Amino acid sequence: MTDFEEIGKEFLSFYYDTFDNNREGLLDLYQEESMLTYNGEQFKGQESILKKLTGLKFNSIQHQLNDYQSHPSLQDSVLVSAVGTIFLDNNENGISFSQVFLLAPVQGSSSYFIYNDIFSLNLN
Amino acid sequence: MTDFEEIGKEFLSFYYDTFDNNREGLLDLYQEESMLTYNGEQFKGQESILKKLTGLKFNSIQHQLNDYQSHPSLQDSVLVSAVGTIFLDNNENGISFSQVFLLAPVQGSSSYFIYNDIFSLNLN
Repeated sequence: MTDFEEIGKEFLSFYYDTFDNNREGLLDLYQEESMLTYNGEQFKGQESILKKLTGLKFNSIQHQLNDYQSHPSLQDSVLVSAVGTIFLDNNENGISFSQVFLLAPVQGSSSYFIYNDIFSLNLN
Repeated sequence: MTDFEEIGKEFLSFYYDTFDNNREGLLDLYQEESMLTYNGEQFKGQESILKKLTGLKFNSIQHQLNDYQSHPSLQDSVLVSAVGTIFLDNNENGISFSQVFLLAPVQGSSSYFIYNDIFSLNLN
């Protein structure tokens, strides 16, 4: 597995685990230049994005990752495309989703932050 | 409509129209650093990508774009995420697909080339 594949895989595992168990913990993954499109609605900046993500209305959520692809991209960034299923409030019927992340390196560090995040539920 | 939304919309319209009517015309959209993942298979560089795309086995193809999202990204690039339906050989039953493009500016020009291209048919 090449580096960018490993980075994509580890990121997705960490991201969905944090989303499902400690949503406030996503804060450090976003920065001021980060942008989120959540089902067509756009948010810019760490605070605005976290407010949206932590304000979502459900008691529990579980992300199941079904497939992903990872690419090396501009300025040592990594482009990650994922599809999966979301289970809300322990409902057995999941809703499929797709999500795209552009992960940019944090300056002076070996870690990444989310520069772009496009999330879509597939409701039809 | 902001610039990056306009760029995404115009690019998708041009890309799918060219794909459906003159696939060899896609050549100029890719460069040596371009990368394509086509249903999990990876290709790097203009020639390798075009060989794959022009070698696909069907007589006719029609892409129908159902939804897209566009984001400004690193180094003035534009991230575009699209979902749609493909109709092969005039079959009435389409196959849904999703595709992600990272469009990078061509140096000394106002145009863009495809840095990353992740294409997936949704077969399940």
